This record gives sequence, structure tokens and C-alpha cells, in this order.
Amino acid sequence: MKQNIYDNPVFFEGYTSKRETGLTINDFVEQPSIKSLIPNLEGKTVLDLGCGAGGLTKYCADNGASKVVGIDISSNMINKAKHDNSHEKIEYICTAIEDLNLNEQTFDIIISSLAVHYVEDYPKLVENVRNLLKGNGLFIFSTEHPISTARRQLTRTSKNWITDDEGNRLHWAIDHYHEEGKRAFHWLVDGVVMYHRSLSTLINTLIENGLVLEKVLEPQSTPEGLEKIPKLINEQRRPSFIVIKSRKSN
Amino acid sequence: MKQNIYDNPVFFEGYTSKRETGLTINDFVEQPSIKSLIPNLEGKTVLDLGCGAGGLTKYCADNGASKVVGIDISSNMINKAKHDNSHEKIEYICTAIEDLNLNEQTFDIIISSLAVHYVEDYPKLVENVRNLLKGNGLFIFSTEHPISTARRQLTRTSKNWITDDEGNRLHWAIDHYHEEGKRAFHWLVDGVVMYHRSLSTLINTLIENGLVLEKVLEPQSTPEGLEKIPKLINEQRRPSFIVIKSRKSN
Repeated sequence: MKQNIYDNPVFFEGYTSKRETGLTINDFVEQPSIKSLIPNLEGKTVLDLGCGAGGLTKYCADNGASKVVGIDISSNMINKAKHDNSHEKIEYICTAIEDLNLNEQTFDIIISSLAVHYVEDYPKLVENVRNLLKGNGLFIFSTEHPISTARRQLTRTSKNWITDDEGNRLHWAIDHYHEEGKRAFHWLVDGVVMYHRSLSTLINTLIENGLVLEKVLEPQSTPEGLEKIPKLINEQRRPSFIVIKSRKSN
Repeated sequence: MKQNIYDNPVFFEGYTSKRETGLTINDFVEQPSIKSLIPNLEGKTVLDLGCGAGGLTKYCADNGASKVVGIDISSNMINKAKHDNSHEKIEYICTAIEDLNLNEQTFDIIISSLAVHYVEDYPKLVENVRNLLKGNGLFIFSTEHPISTARRQLTRTSKNWITDDEGNRLHWAIDHYHEEGKRAFHWLVDGVVMYHRSLSTLINTLIENGLVLEKVLEPQSTPEGLEKIPKLINEQRRPSFIVIKSRKSN
């Protein structure tokens, strides 16, 4: 079943009010990293998979893309994107990544910011991406790092940061690395589901589908982020995200 | 300074008597994995970086390579290789990987089994590999996984497996992921040094040197290994090694 947690009203409210502060890990760790991999967009067509409220979609349109299609499974999110981040070059479509059907349109660049870990069938996703890319096109995506998703949460309150009695973070716990699949946890609401995949699965699936790896990033915080959210220093201790740029070979 | 721990007599004795049992993690996890990435060797020239006692060097000669050069910094190891694993197609040379000078010889395939983590200057190593490879040649190597090397050992006895009072392994501890560099620990003797590098450093350095990624493995144990060494089941919980196959682009 395709997950649509962003249409849960409690989650949606909690998530959007958090993101709108502009003071999240996304703002200072993930977004600067994925943007650093996006090339000059002048005249390029872009597809944004799991566009959410359209922040990155709008960024692409503002930076010269000739056309941007943003898709998301959540109608809440698509409505918010249309309201907050509309642009004459952008078309927003409410659909699951897995169901995407764009009548043989192809794109110069496909981006996806922190959505791939919500998709159960990663090989199918990558196959779709390859078919939607023009020759020599780029697929640039960020996802939860396998180090971050590996350990099953044994109870709702268990955390992967192991702390001492005073709450100091001693280390990050890894386990179940090669048990790929569902990880359910509490994030604003119960039962948010992500899919854990090993690093080798993430990379080899791209290669097997004719995508050539160009860069892998495990981002840390920007200096501004460290100033505004001191705990982002912990990104040095273990990476939360991995960001991958690959190119379709001809 | 280049490390030559294998010429420490206590280490050498401990290491070789352990390896000679044929019952180590190398035999059932790392070796099957790196061998699975080595293509048909018929008529190929091979360079083995950090060949140790020559087991894998001999494997290449036995499997049809037209010529194999095995190099190692340890004269103990090279002497043992010449004694245990000589072959008319093999030349063993005692030198540090960093000092390698082969008078413009080039190779079809360069392999390296669990030696790269002893080398401080990884970019220089990869640059040398590129120069030593023929066009379209392969670089296939195994190294300690960043998950395995990340956490600094705070004391000589601290371990990265966190256990309960009965000694049960609760989880594997990660820390200091982005602090690349030296990790010293006790393995048979004090002060064995490895170099921790993040996954992105391992991969991007290859790409920046014109090597195209073909496969990444995070090996688990073979069924035989699980039978003979039950604790190898822990390789499912966190990977000890990463094995990477890349090809020089023309």
C-alpha cells in the first residue's frame, strides 16, 4: 500500500508548522546539499518526485528551468504547493510516484528530496526514473541514510541515540542492517513508515538501470545551521541523509 | 609514516596462525565477496596491492591470468608468499603501495584485499591505480566498512559492540563518522593503525579519478561460514567490509 501520511491532518499540521519555521535539519543539512548537486537549469525540463509543498520545485523554476512538473501523493501537500509555490512554469500533479504516467514525456533532470524512503518498490522507482529521463539526463535525490534507518525501533520510545543518565548522547546505535524493508516509528503521529535499504542496494539498483554515479554526499550542517540549531553538530557523528547524483548513460 | 605492522614478530605470528586455520571472517565473508567480482582472468595481467601471504595472488594465477604482480610492505609477508604461494606467473615485490614504481607497466586488473584501510593517502593511492590501469581496466578492492571504522576507541578495551551484563550484543555503536583519519586499536598487539574514511570519500575519490562504479558489495557470510563460525551471523547486523568494483573510463 502506498503511504500517504501527509494527508493525516495531525501529521500535516505538525509537519507544515515545523517546516515553516525555516529552522529544520532540512533547511541546513539536506537542502543545501541537494541544491549543490543541481546544475545550471537554464532551458532544462525538471520533474520533482515527492515535491511536498513545492519549495524545491519553485527553486528550479526560479533558477531558469523551462518547465517543472512536481508530483506528490498528498492532496494536502499539492494544494499547499499550488498556494505557496505557484509559478507559470510549474505544473503540480497529485499522484503516487509509483503510479506516475506522463504520456511519454521525458525530462532533462529528475530530482527527489527526502521522498524515496517512503517508496516500497525502489527498483520499480528507478526503472521509472530511467524511462522518464532523456539520454544523458540527471537523477539527483536525497534519502534517509542507511545508517539512520537500519535499526528497528523496538518500542515506540526507543531511540537510536544511546544516552547516559544525564541525557548526553554516547553514540548512535546500528542493528538489522541487512534486514531491508519497513521501519515504522513515531514522528508527530504513530506509524510513520519508511523503508530501509542498504547502501549497496541504493547504489547497485541505479547502476543496473544504466545510471552512472557522479557524486555521493553525506551532508553535514552549514555554519549558519550550527549557529541556529546547535544540535546539528551531531551530523558529524553519524549522517542522517545521503544525496546521490547519477546520469543516464546513452 | 607507512605502517608495517605485519613485520612486528608478535603480530605476524598471531596473524598467520589465525589465517592458517582457514576459519576466519576473511575466508567466509570477504574472500568470497571479492572473488565474486573478479571476471574471467584468461590472458589478463593483474596487480595485487597489499598481497600479504599471496593467497589471492595465487588464486589469480591459478585462474588463468597471464601475469600477476603481488606487492606488500612486509618482508615477512612477501617471504611467506614466495614460500607458500609461488607460481611461474607471479612476481612478488616488497614495497609500500605508496612507493610503487613499475616503470610504466600497466595492468588489466588491479585487486586489493583488505589493505586500503592501512594506507593514509587514499587520493594518491587511487591516482596511482588509475595510472597503473590500462584503458577499460578494473580496480576491485575490499576495505573495512566506514560503519566498522567510524567510532574512535576511547580506551584499548572499549568495543563497538555494546553488550548487556550477560555479554549479549545489543547493537553496534557509531560515532565520529565525519572525523576521517587514524584509528588505533588493539588487534593481537597494541597500536594497529587503520584509516577511517566516509563512504562518500571512498566513492567520490574513485569517480574524480575517472573510475566508473560498477558494483558495491557489503558482504554477509556464506552458509558454510555460518555453520563453522556461528557469530558471523552478526554480519547481518552491521557490515564489516565494503567491496567496490570500478572501471577506468577511456
